[in-house]
Amino acid sequence: MLKVPSLELLIHELGRLPGIGQKSAQRLAFYILRSPHQASEKLRAAMQQVEEKVRTCPQCFSFTEEPLCHFCTDPSRDNDSLCVVEEPMDILRVESSGVFRGRYHVLQGTISPLEGIAPKDIRIEELLQKINGSLKEGATPIREIILALDADLEGDTTVLYLAKHLKEKAVKLTRIAHGVPMGSDIDYIDHRTLGRALENRVVL
Amino acid sequence: MLKVPSLELLIHELGRLPGIGQKSAQRLAFYILRSPHQASEKLRAAMQQVEEKVRTCPQCFSFTEEPLCHFCTDPSRDNDSLCVVEEPMDILRVESSGVFRGRYHVLQGTISPLEGIAPKDIRIEELLQKINGSLKEGATPIREIILALDADLEGDTTVLYLAKHLKEKAVKLTRIAHGVPMGSDIDYIDHRTLGRALENRVVL
Repeated sequence: MLKVPSLELLIHELGRLPGIGQKSAQRLAFYILRSPHQASEKLRAAMQQVEEKVRTCPQCFSFTEEPLCHFCTDPSRDNDSLCVVEEPMDILRVESSGVFRGRYHVLQGTISPLEGIAPKDIRIEELLQKINGSLKEGATPIREIILALDADLEGDTTVLYLAKHLKEKAVKLTRIAHGVPMGSDIDYIDHRTLGRALENRVVL
Repeated sequence: MLKVPSLELLIHELGRLPGIGQKSAQRLAFYILRSPHQASEKLRAAMQQVEEKVRTCPQCFSFTEEPLCHFCTDPSRDNDSLCVVEEPMDILRVESSGVFRGRYHVLQGTISPLEGIAPKDIRIEELLQKINGSLKEGATPIREIILALDADLEGDTTVLYLAKHLKEKAVKLTRIAHGVPMGSDIDYIDHRTLGRALENRVVL
């Protein structure tokens, strides 16, 4: 320790960020200290702006600065397919694939009995209401719900729960495919992934 | 992109930090956004405090909040050995070894003809003055200068320059050893390091 209290406090605070270990926190703190006054000020201003301006979109539960978010208001997107994700960052990932052109619904979590997260703690009720609403006469129907949830226990639990509650609705429910990642070597793929890739093989 | 301008600005600013790529910047920005109000405020306050309070120690050129830094004023440290480092963060590394108990001198850079950094651009003049001053009659003499500089081209250039300017002084000049890192497998060591480790072998 350099025995510079404010520097140590900054290292401590930076070390609380996800994926930032002790050494990274030190490196960042020294960088912030050395960088021209403006650089650090810009970062602080950006943090404050985000806190002040960004809120949750009341329709899809992603982030927005407007009354509704970009994806909910964009008229060029399809209303008949809805992609369900765990958190707003997942929207970035789905968007970067360039394959999906519908609307989103952010669950703000996944069901996790281990962590005490029940269906009522996440935005499942709002999802069911959204689907029911769209199936009413005169509304634009949602034809397909694509679940783009993580391939882990919590993701699986949430998929099973939603499948159970949606199976009697007139809506197609799909889940993104599990399989061998693009560009990867079959030698290095774990047996569960390869098993799933074989089961879900695609007719050419 | 989520088309949330303030969030995108924050991702951009975070992405300018060293070692933070695009995906890490996104992860950090979403974390800052989701984390309780206080957490982000604490981080911003810590950044501001550092900017306001921390200055350069006029004696060793490390960081301090006081007129002189902890290492320059600590009476329990030896005055007769001086460890020369490139930047204040390196002091943390040397301190964590627990082996050195003398004073420090931060060069605030290394000589780099490629980047146009000449000896006059870093704290070499101040180092030479410090050594000359200590060798005057009545002063506490510095007996050993330990160069703890990076093992790269710039570090080597700086070591050569200092060796040339200090060789006629009544002071022992040493450089930290190059060799096989502790706990590592000789199989994985590059040939230059292993060559140096052989040349600098230690009598048991």
